[in-house]
Amino acid sequence: MYRTHTCGELRLTEVGQSITLSGWVQRRRDFGGLSFIDLRDRYGITQLAFNEGVDADILSKARLINRESVIQAEGIVVEREKKNKGIETGEIEIRVTSIKTLSSAKTPPFTIEENTDGGDDLRMKYRYLDLRRKSVLEKLLLRNKISMLVRTYLNLNGFADIETPYLIKSTPEGARDFVVPSRVNRGQFYALPQSPQTFKQLLMIGGLDKYYQIVRCFRDEDLRADRQPEFTQIDCEMSFIKQDDILNVFEGLLKHVIKEVHSKEIGSIPKMTYATAIKKYGNDKPDIRFDMTFVELNELVKGSDFPVFNNAELIVGINVKGCADYSRKELDTLTSFVKRPQLGMSGLIWMKVDENGIPSSSVKKFFDQSELKKWMTEFDAEKGDLVLILAGEKTKTRKALSETRMHLAEKLGLRKPMEFAPLWVVDFPLLERDEDNNRWMAMHHPFTSPKPEDLKIIDSNPGAVRANAYDLVLNGNEIGGGSIRIHEKKLQSKMFDLLGFTESEANEQFGFLMNAFEYGAPPHGGIAFGFDRLVAIMGGDEVIRDYIAFPKNNSARDVMIEAPSQISDEQLEDLSISIKLKD
Amino acid sequence: MYRTHTCGELRLTEVGQSITLSGWVQRRRDFGGLSFIDLRDRYGITQLAFNEGVDADILSKARLINRESVIQAEGIVVEREKKNKGIETGEIEIRVTSIKTLSSAKTPPFTIEENTDGGDDLRMKYRYLDLRRKSVLEKLLLRNKISMLVRTYLNLNGFADIETPYLIKSTPEGARDFVVPSRVNRGQFYALPQSPQTFKQLLMIGGLDKYYQIVRCFRDEDLRADRQPEFTQIDCEMSFIKQDDILNVFEGLLKHVIKEVHSKEIGSIPKMTYATAIKKYGNDKPDIRFDMTFVELNELVKGSDFPVFNNAELIVGINVKGCADYSRKELDTLTSFVKRPQLGMSGLIWMKVDENGIPSSSVKKFFDQSELKKWMTEFDAEKGDLVLILAGEKTKTRKALSETRMHLAEKLGLRKPMEFAPLWVVDFPLLERDEDNNRWMAMHHPFTSPKPEDLKIIDSNPGAVRANAYDLVLNGNEIGGGSIRIHEKKLQSKMFDLLGFTESEANEQFGFLMNAFEYGAPPHGGIAFGFDRLVAIMGGDEVIRDYIAFPKNNSARDVMIEAPSQISDEQLEDLSISIKLKD
Repeated sequence: MYRTHTCGELRLTEVGQSITLSGWVQRRRDFGGLSFIDLRDRYGITQLAFNEGVDADILSKARLINRESVIQAEGIVVEREKKNKGIETGEIEIRVTSIKTLSSAKTPPFTIEENTDGGDDLRMKYRYLDLRRKSVLEKLLLRNKISMLVRTYLNLNGFADIETPYLIKSTPEGARDFVVPSRVNRGQFYALPQSPQTFKQLLMIGGLDKYYQIVRCFRDEDLRADRQPEFTQIDCEMSFIKQDDILNVFEGLLKHVIKEVHSKEIGSIPKMTYATAIKKYGNDKPDIRFDMTFVELNELVKGSDFPVFNNAELIVGINVKGCADYSRKELDTLTSFVKRPQLGMSGLIWMKVDENGIPSSSVKKFFDQSELKKWMTEFDAEKGDLVLILAGEKTKTRKALSETRMHLAEKLGLRKPMEFAPLWVVDFPLLERDEDNNRWMAMHHPFTSPKPEDLKIIDSNPGAVRANAYDLVLNGNEIGGGSIRIHEKKLQSKMFDLLGFTESEANEQFGFLMNAFEYGAPPHGGIAFGFDRLVAIMGGDEVIRDYIAFPKNNSARDVMIEAPSQISDEQLEDLSISIKLKD
Repeated sequence: MYRTHTCGELRLTEVGQSITLSGWVQRRRDFGGLSFIDLRDRYGITQLAFNEGVDADILSKARLINRESVIQAEGIVVEREKKNKGIETGEIEIRVTSIKTLSSAKTPPFTIEENTDGGDDLRMKYRYLDLRRKSVLEKLLLRNKISMLVRTYLNLNGFADIETPYLIKSTPEGARDFVVPSRVNRGQFYALPQSPQTFKQLLMIGGLDKYYQIVRCFRDEDLRADRQPEFTQIDCEMSFIKQDDILNVFEGLLKHVIKEVHSKEIGSIPKMTYATAIKKYGNDKPDIRFDMTFVELNELVKGSDFPVFNNAELIVGINVKGCADYSRKELDTLTSFVKRPQLGMSGLIWMKVDENGIPSSSVKKFFDQSELKKWMTEFDAEKGDLVLILAGEKTKTRKALSETRMHLAEKLGLRKPMEFAPLWVVDFPLLERDEDNNRWMAMHHPFTSPKPEDLKIIDSNPGAVRANAYDLVLNGNEIGGGSIRIHEKKLQSKMFDLLGFTESEANEQFGFLMNAFEYGAPPHGGIAFGFDRLVAIMGGDEVIRDYIAFPKNNSARDVMIEAPSQISDEQLEDLSISIKLKD
């Protein structure tokens, strides 16, 4: 061992002891006949003291050591004259009696301090240096902590961690697969799993009863910001359960994590139907840390002289409490916000309630005081409130108002990172329409069971069929999603049929699962959590990249190791493939 | 929930309660007016009782249910007349009041009992049915248990579980990589990791201090029996440690696992140098549950009239205690064993010591009683012992005698599965000669540090340089191996040079690591355990396949899902590759 203690553990109780520390030189401060080195490791920082009067040789040696060099120092623990309350070892320092450089450092390409001068690209290229920054290190340690909390909870609840294969079969329904050419089976390919979905269902059919895995998954998608080609999932499945059994178990899991990480008790998690979430929040992952729920005005305002309302499919607004003092300019900015091409609204209507309770509005030409008073009632608007209203096609208008709501909440500081407001969204539709390809897609995945009471309309009105599917939403992010699965061959075939699979396609891709249903399949269901995102939210962030030890950039590259890269002709030949670049 | 209890938990204390069970029909036994169903789930088996006198309708319903169907039964817990001491629920049965088939089963392709009639291929094709057999299920649950024991131990010892990437760079040194074509970076490929070696070293350079991961690794090798293209590793790394610190931590881990799984305390793990292991056991993973250590006779027997000894580089034997009664035929069989082409010896020499302590030998023509008595002393041979001797080229002879020793131990029942005798083998050579390609290969891997005291001969006699490398051997299997790593750029370059890398090859493949060494790298080292094998040995087996939920066969195929498989032309085109089958 190169140390007797870590840099985070010495206290006044150790004063007088001879100790050895090893670590990185965080910084050195030189004064006349004195020098101090802050020695850093994973556990903390300890001050090393060098005094010309005590040992001039060691002092001069210390002055030759660069930042970020790794050194080993022997010495005596002494009480500091000037205590530093900011760090846990701040009451002591080490009077160094011997010092040795274990690995000397060149000047790093960016400053390894909390406020680094390193840009994203540089930090990613030298990720091993970035990891030395306390905040980055702590993100990885938080991830480790949560991983262990999840495992402990699930094991105590009877779940078994079963590893499923990474080299599986390509089933190009859904997102694109990453594939792996097989050398032994020439011309054939494995795929990397987008999730262990079918395997966990087979485990249920095999009688494993309760399964979980914290598992890497892969999707070859065009990367939007903050998506990674490989990501980690907490993947779970249970047999002989109904939807509420699953919600209870995983409500318990989230409470356990929040309690252990933040010492916060959260109450029971509310449930909201998908239909309500869309109507009240304009999206299926509402942030319920704050209100500003949608109020629909169609009945109240149709038939006035205002053509925008009369022509709109939906008129809907929110009450932005206490914001009646928004200036003309601020309202113009909001109007530009909704008129951006991404949202595409034609304008924004506002109503303010002044300190006397008198409403005014951008459309007062069309709506008189008595009418605006009715709006106030609908929105529960009081003195000082600002009401914002959008009108237009239903889906588009809801989306725009949802974004406006989130934008304002951010601006008003309502999205408090250390407040946790989870929500179950239930009763998702089974299918969604892919208008481009004129076909139905599974909203969750093809193994999700329809609600039995909706089965009667599955042919006449498939879009209206609800599924036994649910999402766990936290602070406006979907952190988990799952469903009760189909466990009958006939219904599964029906589902593939609805999704446009021919019988032979269904059999080729998923025949093993449908066959398995014929040998005694228990009713089962499960859930999967996006682990990267869960950890980021627990850390008070929404960006996942820093919570991944070695993330890839938006071009799916690892810029540190320079991957992907070319491989040799010999490798290609072994794999019976050749490169064929498109023009 | 489809049940109030599992099939493993009801006891006499529940007699009189109304309960609901769900599970699989293990078997049904019909008598005149009575039927019994053994209902099975992960947790056990409970007997359901049907009596014509009580409810003839339910009885006749029960008699329609096939084996392996999934049913739900409601009823009352009653005390059994004939108790079954063989199962934990054997004192009670369920008087069924209502029964429902949740999923009916066709006749399975093999019998789902402990002594199944299913061959390996069939069992793998229907792995989900095979998993229902208690012994297979228990293997997976043992794996889960050991995984959690490992995690708990490592977390308590300050190790953090850090996930490293699966899409990395191909570095074709060593085994063949599985590669993944990149769609976004056309013509380029990721590789799947053979181990997270370089990443865990970068984590040490990043200051993580103690890392572990239970992680999938991939090797595209021609599969020998009981090798899998994907396998799981317990991967660990520590900073600021020396070899003994690592051995201590992981000795503790193995003790913890054996104690928790088998309630056995093992003493401290002995250490043996590689040189001694080869000399005394003829291989580097000796099974030390039994003796039969090698005794070299060169000095004693050279210069006799026996040309076989005089011409041999090595004359070496073992004492097979108490086997002097081996017949001529048994000795002939052993002789054939060593003469097989795989071992290639020209013959086997034996000496027997009879009940009066008188030796006889197959070479008594060349060695008289007084000489054989000397042999007896060397081998510590007593009445009733059998000594077997081989002579020939050193490496080949040792290998053959090692195999003979293991073969006899197996035959004599000395390889007791529930006896655990771990051993550290240390001081491995740094390099081994690849005679085919006339070059040096890293015996462990290119990042292993040579022993500092051997550095002086690294140019003059590289083959004699010992490494700071160690294996953990258990019952004749290597279950773990590791090393203290190089943490200096200069020495790492030297190592690549010895291994025949040009400077630019070294830089292209491992430049990121060598650069990292220039920014302050702590001394570090680690170990990796083959998790599949560890679990198998803990389960009393040496074959790993049943300890993997969904293993691949010897052609690297998953015969259940039929992977690998062909992919579509569209997928190939997206990936800028084409298939080019060799003639």
